[in-house]
Amino acid sequence: MNDHTTPTQQPAPQLSDEEIFAAHEGGKLSVGLTAPLSSQRELSIAYTPGVAKVSRAIAADEDLAQRYTWTPGLVAVVSDGTAVLGLGDIGPRASLPVMEGKSALFKTFAGIDSIPLVLDTTDVDEIVDTLVRLRPSFGAVNLEDVAAPRCFELERRLIEALDCPVMHDDQHGTAVVALAALRNACTITGRDFASQRVVISGAGAAGVACAKILDAAGIGEIVVADSKGVIHPGRGELTPIKQELAEQTNSAGVTGSLADALKGADVLIGVSAGQIPEEDVAAMNEGAIVFALSNPDPEIHPHLAAKHASVVATGRSDYPNQINNVLAFPGIFKGAMQAGSRMITDRMKVAAAEAIAAVAAEDLSADQIVPSPLDPRVAPEVTAAVAKAAQEDGVATA
Amino acid sequence: MNDHTTPTQQPAPQLSDEEIFAAHEGGKLSVGLTAPLSSQRELSIAYTPGVAKVSRAIAADEDLAQRYTWTPGLVAVVSDGTAVLGLGDIGPRASLPVMEGKSALFKTFAGIDSIPLVLDTTDVDEIVDTLVRLRPSFGAVNLEDVAAPRCFELERRLIEALDCPVMHDDQHGTAVVALAALRNACTITGRDFASQRVVISGAGAAGVACAKILDAAGIGEIVVADSKGVIHPGRGELTPIKQELAEQTNSAGVTGSLADALKGADVLIGVSAGQIPEEDVAAMNEGAIVFALSNPDPEIHPHLAAKHASVVATGRSDYPNQINNVLAFPGIFKGAMQAGSRMITDRMKVAAAEAIAAVAAEDLSADQIVPSPLDPRVAPEVTAAVAKAAQEDGVATA
Repeated sequence: MNDHTTPTQQPAPQLSDEEIFAAHEGGKLSVGLTAPLSSQRELSIAYTPGVAKVSRAIAADEDLAQRYTWTPGLVAVVSDGTAVLGLGDIGPRASLPVMEGKSALFKTFAGIDSIPLVLDTTDVDEIVDTLVRLRPSFGAVNLEDVAAPRCFELERRLIEALDCPVMHDDQHGTAVVALAALRNACTITGRDFASQRVVISGAGAAGVACAKILDAAGIGEIVVADSKGVIHPGRGELTPIKQELAEQTNSAGVTGSLADALKGADVLIGVSAGQIPEEDVAAMNEGAIVFALSNPDPEIHPHLAAKHASVVATGRSDYPNQINNVLAFPGIFKGAMQAGSRMITDRMKVAAAEAIAAVAAEDLSADQIVPSPLDPRVAPEVTAAVAKAAQEDGVATA
Repeated sequence: MNDHTTPTQQPAPQLSDEEIFAAHEGGKLSVGLTAPLSSQRELSIAYTPGVAKVSRAIAADEDLAQRYTWTPGLVAVVSDGTAVLGLGDIGPRASLPVMEGKSALFKTFAGIDSIPLVLDTTDVDEIVDTLVRLRPSFGAVNLEDVAAPRCFELERRLIEALDCPVMHDDQHGTAVVALAALRNACTITGRDFASQRVVISGAGAAGVACAKILDAAGIGEIVVADSKGVIHPGRGELTPIKQELAEQTNSAGVTGSLADALKGADVLIGVSAGQIPEEDVAAMNEGAIVFALSNPDPEIHPHLAAKHASVVATGRSDYPNQINNVLAFPGIFKGAMQAGSRMITDRMKVAAAEAIAAVAAEDLSADQIVPSPLDPRVAPEVTAAVAKAAQEDGVATA
């Protein structure tokens, strides 16, 4: 038994409503100038007549827009407000503070400019059409808080339609950090990554992406369970994405409930918003690894999980090992855009996870399998690793 | 004969290509935070878990998005790149430096946040659909550099479809400043505004808007000529907007060419990109007022115009009386948004013109009928006048 369930040095802040709402008054973002316009001369350069030369140059060679506008480094943070935090379908307007916060994180952690674009439609065709028409206005799309299973189709369609990086962060940001954490959890417990039996509880955005990235990273075996139990080919009425999961995971042909799947499993990744009884975790292999990532309520309280697991992680900042996708998305987008990549490949995501894991590995313990979200080393390392992977994958153009 | 055709104290800057392109490297805009995120506490307020309270509050009362997001003060600078400066249809990507410049002007002159949204479509239905879907993302739309006559339909459709201020600046920004200038030109020459006979050369975006605002402001008589001559009901094959002009202007039933219309006219407003022979201007009334606003080449050189006119204005910064719409649009949008107005009415535009005229009236001369574009008094005065007019028109909600 270790003591990794004691609170971290940074306890959950006690935030008053007054403080929170005051900080949001007027919004959290502002558009600034890269250089001041305080003289007639500066005006004549940035606007007429000077700007005409730049516009004429881009008209003659559209690629120059990559050099002389802000768009190649600009991320559109796009949401329809249908799966906002744990609040569900609260609509685009109510999602705005989250999207502004996301833009603030992009700026803070990677110096990336981004603009929230929230959509008053949930129709996939309409969202795709809208972003295709706006394509000259940005350099990448961070999809955010779009409900499953629509998020899978929407991301796939956008990747097909747009010649720029597109990533649904609720899927891949979480998956990348979970993979990083699992790498280090295996290291610290002396486990062989390639032979782990992993159970993922939840087949929403994060669950599906976790399954895919663990598969891409070469994990031993994956079983995914949703609220109806283990996903396998014999189960009826599967959505297309679950059908895909059924075909690509669960090579041992497990059936039954989550509890059935957990018997003898090495790793549990909870991304379900549900609760998992202690006895089910107790039935896992000796010294198991438990990531209970639902927020604000983990699938199993880390105190209870620690009774049966050697490493425990959550999504909360007030317990050790916070699986926080802010470790991933700023560097992933920055690396992809720096490389001029038209997409974010599996290899780029896995490279991001390895980079995150490597930063934590410098001072590894069961309570520190991932870096702090505020660790300034992370984003530059992830950026470099992702840009390199883009080169290796042949998708870089810069 | 006065000396108002001598260069101003601010000669046209000699700008090298190197200087212009260097200033555009990486674009001209940046998204910043209104408050830094440097601690776990600040992160917990601006993002999870704190932000959830704000999102929940907006979900319960959508009007709170006006208070707790940046959108009510955010202008979307929208273009399809079809009529960019004097460069014509150079496309959305090549229009970007101009739109970034426009955003820079919004910030510099009125502290307004704005984002360029350039569209890879010229279809009115598609542009309207796109902005309707994005409606929760911004607080106003500045249409920019959209070709006539499509710009008239697009602006009308957007005003109908969006419950926020929409203005095509190439129309109304220019018209507002021209009206301001004409008020002061009449004052300084002792002319009665309400009995002036005005000829507008050009029936594009600016020409149509000048005719409308002069009519709304109570000018005596207006004749509009396009490249085929005077617009009147007897002319065949008029576009819808020219048909409207034919019905609403030219009460004296003038026909023939621009030269015919100028005989005995008091005021010429050139917004045509064409050239007007000196003898046509010479045929105007004694002590006429000539605004030759085409850029970079005025319809008649101000030196020549001054031989026959008592007041001359251009669109250029290197001659006196620059009709520059930067005097208008920052304050118009700021006033409209401050008032929570759902539209920008004729009264608000006329109020903006009166406010601009009033600033110049403090130190009026034939060479100073409008303030300098850099005059810091203008935007606050326009803002206040526009907000007041919105109240008077009953369109304010704040």
